[in-house]
Amino acid sequence: MINKNYLKLPGSYLFATIGRKVNEFTQANPDKSIIRLGIGDVSLPLAPAIVNAIHEAADEMGKAETFHGYPDYEGCDFLREAIIANDYKTRGVDLGMDEIFVNDGAKCDSADLGQIFSKDVKVAVCDPVYPVYVDSNAMAGRAGDYQEDKQYWSNLIYMPCTQENGFAPEIPSERPDVIYLCFPNNPTGATIKKDQLQKWVDYANEVGAVIIFDAAYEAYISEDDVPHSIYECEGAKKCAIEMRSFSKNAGFTGMRLGFTVVPKELERDGVSLNWMWLKHQETSFNGVSYVVQKAGAAVYTPEGKQQTTQQVAYYMKNAKYIREGLLKAGFEASGGVNAPYVWLKTPNGMTSWEFFDYLLENANVVGTPGSGFGPHGEGFFRLTGFGNYENTVEAIRRIQNL
Amino acid sequence: MINKNYLKLPGSYLFATIGRKVNEFTQANPDKSIIRLGIGDVSLPLAPAIVNAIHEAADEMGKAETFHGYPDYEGCDFLREAIIANDYKTRGVDLGMDEIFVNDGAKCDSADLGQIFSKDVKVAVCDPVYPVYVDSNAMAGRAGDYQEDKQYWSNLIYMPCTQENGFAPEIPSERPDVIYLCFPNNPTGATIKKDQLQKWVDYANEVGAVIIFDAAYEAYISEDDVPHSIYECEGAKKCAIEMRSFSKNAGFTGMRLGFTVVPKELERDGVSLNWMWLKHQETSFNGVSYVVQKAGAAVYTPEGKQQTTQQVAYYMKNAKYIREGLLKAGFEASGGVNAPYVWLKTPNGMTSWEFFDYLLENANVVGTPGSGFGPHGEGFFRLTGFGNYENTVEAIRRIQNL
Repeated sequence: MINKNYLKLPGSYLFATIGRKVNEFTQANPDKSIIRLGIGDVSLPLAPAIVNAIHEAADEMGKAETFHGYPDYEGCDFLREAIIANDYKTRGVDLGMDEIFVNDGAKCDSADLGQIFSKDVKVAVCDPVYPVYVDSNAMAGRAGDYQEDKQYWSNLIYMPCTQENGFAPEIPSERPDVIYLCFPNNPTGATIKKDQLQKWVDYANEVGAVIIFDAAYEAYISEDDVPHSIYECEGAKKCAIEMRSFSKNAGFTGMRLGFTVVPKELERDGVSLNWMWLKHQETSFNGVSYVVQKAGAAVYTPEGKQQTTQQVAYYMKNAKYIREGLLKAGFEASGGVNAPYVWLKTPNGMTSWEFFDYLLENANVVGTPGSGFGPHGEGFFRLTGFGNYENTVEAIRRIQNL
Repeated sequence: MINKNYLKLPGSYLFATIGRKVNEFTQANPDKSIIRLGIGDVSLPLAPAIVNAIHEAADEMGKAETFHGYPDYEGCDFLREAIIANDYKTRGVDLGMDEIFVNDGAKCDSADLGQIFSKDVKVAVCDPVYPVYVDSNAMAGRAGDYQEDKQYWSNLIYMPCTQENGFAPEIPSERPDVIYLCFPNNPTGATIKKDQLQKWVDYANEVGAVIIFDAAYEAYISEDDVPHSIYECEGAKKCAIEMRSFSKNAGFTGMRLGFTVVPKELERDGVSLNWMWLKHQETSFNGVSYVVQKAGAAVYTPEGKQQTTQQVAYYMKNAKYIREGLLKAGFEASGGVNAPYVWLKTPNGMTSWEFFDYLLENANVVGTPGSGFGPHGEGFFRLTGFGNYENTVEAIRRIQNL
């Protein structure tokens, strides 16, 4: 009577495993000072404009005249208006209020969006990839069986992202129904230009596939001609769902806020996917805390923008330091230009987990093993710019002295 | 390629339909003062102890030393400790930290718990019933087809709750795999005594079924011998999952906080359901906002307890007023003793939706049509004690003058 697909999952969720390993090391070595450049968690406190908004929301919730009960399933109007005006209108993208679905963090929708598709859709993922896309599809029975030796799920289409193709996947030979893309990419830190993304949109429209586009890191784009939204590409509203997060652009990892865009033009089998996602949210969700949505709206105020832009710049300074420090130490490293992630090749043929242990034990630095993101991540390792600057400098010093 | 089960859903989600109807009426009649005793939303502002906790959490999030990033998937330790000590230990129930899963409102887990079961489990629900249990199973393909004429899903086991059985379901003749029970009940306001619930536990253990027990309204229990938790019954840890909510006992409808208990002793097909739910949460969820969890912990402080107990008493005074006012006006009404809901029989053979329109147009009072909760809800209507006292008195005055 249980969902047997759960039993197919290999081992533990990547970041849970890392957490357990670090806890064990800390308990065995209480005197060591660990520097965490692993999990993509932020380290700067919430910006003052956001803290003020939480205080205001608390006061509103404490008075009968301004108290807020059940939030709208789709999100508060004030937040969706700010999203449309600031994240899309400024880039020439017109979206309606009912095309935005506010959520409690992009991870939930990353996992749940699969529910609007049938059990037998063919799913394509980048390799390496954010594990949630794969695991959620595996748990829903879409991934087939896990092949321990190859570290592959039998029924997924893998799109390798390698040093050779600059970590930009090629269009697969087998036709997928659903394609997960994430640019700027987690974990590689790579991204693609607008004309490259346009090719994916054209392909999806040609074969009737749906692209689930994860744009959680768009605030880190520093180069021109890199799209911030997939809807900057022509025809994308007919084939793409876009996910955004407040976790990284505004430090909301502990606040839990994101949103998903499902355009009204997006139909499959003659059915509006916008309607389907609304049904999903109405049934399985009850909106995001008013306090958190007020905090989210503060990100779009002049003070909020100025303060969160500074935070992003701070993390990108770290990422640059990591990338350049690794190159100086003789590592092969990429990323860190349009994304807070630096992707490095493990030295001396070490596996990703061997390098994880080596780094933890000898430099007391925590990173993320590339193999945790898929078989083509093997032999690579992810470091993030989300630490504080002094710790980042110290971590690189330790790595350079290994 | 879409999940066709979505297309089987009849019409709109109940409360969304009510919302649309009320909006239409308000726009057409801007001069009328509507009193909402329909959706189970609270009206009192958050208690001062909770507002203070939000302020404190905001300040913590604004300082580097006390900032909190990604929360634990299972919930913050301080909140789970408070839950175990206050909600369970006091009633003689011992639970471990890893048996509590904090969530962003019980509705999400009500819908998502089905994911740990296979697609072909047989599900039993009360009739009438909270729609989320039914709709989420229908969307997962477990409910069969909706039969418009009978208002039944072909593959669910319905357990009628009628005036004749005192709105307490009888054990079904067909064996279910999963049984949803909600006591104190939404929508009928009825509940069952401990010896009656023990029979359900014994039955589930005998046939190997799992009970999903929704205890969202336990704070409203006023009579002795009514169980606050299913784990007060012997053997329940071997067959029951329990859901709790902060929405109604502390006015958190706009804050979004609840939790689910999955005991470690609960196994099916030789697999721990606690392990399965942890897998689900690790993959599809990233924890609840730190600010909201701090607010939740404040409910368990001496001030928080005293203030929220007063709020519950306030709503129960309303419920009593509704129940007695309706009886005085010649209605048949029950509930309102161990639950904030009053369940009344529609007069003159009106259908539930006829009475909804009649009440909206003639008394400008919004209630909830019983038929929205299932076929045996037809001819009934739900009013709630969650309004403010003056409005509740005025609503009953208007109803008595109809």
